[in-house]
Amino acid sequence: MRLRNKPWAQYKMDDNPQIVVPDPENWKGKWNELFNNDHPICIEVGTGKGQFITEMAKRHESANFIGIERQKSIVVSAIDKIKESGQKNARMMNVNAMDLIHYFDAGEVHRIYLNFSDPWPKNRHEKRRLTYESFLKAYEKVLIPGGEIHLKTDNQELFEYSLHSFSKYGMILNNMSLDLHQSEFEGNVMTEYEEKFSAMGNRIYRCEAVYRTK
Amino acid sequence: MRLRNKPWAQYKMDDNPQIVVPDPENWKGKWNELFNNDHPICIEVGTGKGQFITEMAKRHESANFIGIERQKSIVVSAIDKIKESGQKNARMMNVNAMDLIHYFDAGEVHRIYLNFSDPWPKNRHEKRRLTYESFLKAYEKVLIPGGEIHLKTDNQELFEYSLHSFSKYGMILNNMSLDLHQSEFEGNVMTEYEEKFSAMGNRIYRCEAVYRTK
Repeated sequence: MRLRNKPWAQYKMDDNPQIVVPDPENWKGKWNELFNNDHPICIEVGTGKGQFITEMAKRHESANFIGIERQKSIVVSAIDKIKESGQKNARMMNVNAMDLIHYFDAGEVHRIYLNFSDPWPKNRHEKRRLTYESFLKAYEKVLIPGGEIHLKTDNQELFEYSLHSFSKYGMILNNMSLDLHQSEFEGNVMTEYEEKFSAMGNRIYRCEAVYRTK
Repeated sequence: MRLRNKPWAQYKMDDNPQIVVPDPENWKGKWNELFNNDHPICIEVGTGKGQFITEMAKRHESANFIGIERQKSIVVSAIDKIKESGQKNARMMNVNAMDLIHYFDAGEVHRIYLNFSDPWPKNRHEKRRLTYESFLKAYEKVLIPGGEIHLKTDNQELFEYSLHSFSKYGMILNNMSLDLHQSEFEGNVMTEYEEKFSAMGNRIYRCEAVYRTK
């Protein structure tokens, strides 16, 4: 995503602690207290401008959604979307996905969404892809046993790579769709990217990768 | 494949024992004696008219190829192709893939090819698909440790299903291509179906599924 420099992003985040959790490390093991309910917690890693998480929060009021986004200048766009929606079950965190274990107890996360993640096409950047082995390990540490990663992308190479990486990690691939918008899949919530790229005629790829219980 | 009844098919097979192995059960554990070399043995399950196996035998003289085809009326087309080529490293077997263990010792097969297999689209026919769990078990019994299945199809549903089935079985998916003819894959040998369907604009899907060593 092309970023404009937004020096005021930190101020805007600080001004919206009800949306961007200012002290996520303090809620480790206690997120249900923050949300004031015992609903399952779903995470989107790389939230972008927040359309997916906001719409998911609207449609699924019996779940909590946390968007994780490293870039402050993007987090601020999501703030506006969530604020506008008035949803209390959607929050943001400005942290790195590799550090999830600092913010969540084992089994505290119900599901992880990866939507249109940066493909990092160069081989030497493989380790930065959000489906690289070290990320799969980090996700597994905070997910419930048999937890799921729901992946969606229009990038063929990233999808091919991810299927390899998931299978190498021993995960089971379910509900695969190699052309989501022509499939019978119901309840799809589109991201900003998805709307743009599918309008350009790109296929959208989707699958659910399930961790094997030990 | 639409089949014309060919009552003479059995006669033609019997007349060509140098191509259609008449007593495959007698070669179990001794295929290298039949081929008179110690080259690796590769199998194509569902050989169709034999273009793939004949061309593979030509290009890879340091390997042996056995085409397995249940339908006698199709086997006879492959006979002509192999005969014409003069390749001694290509043979046919008129048997069922579920019975591989009757014809091969454990570890006797180096690799298995599945090309444009019948998709059996109805759920109630799942067990007939050549990537269903019971087939994966049958293949594993005769393959070398860490053996590979190379799958190619233009049928999106069969490919999606197969990725699920492979991953559920614990296999690793390598060298995936979701659009083979637009990829950088080299040395592709086309089947009769592949030529026809790709000319119609269909995408060709391909992957290599690797058995995990225990």
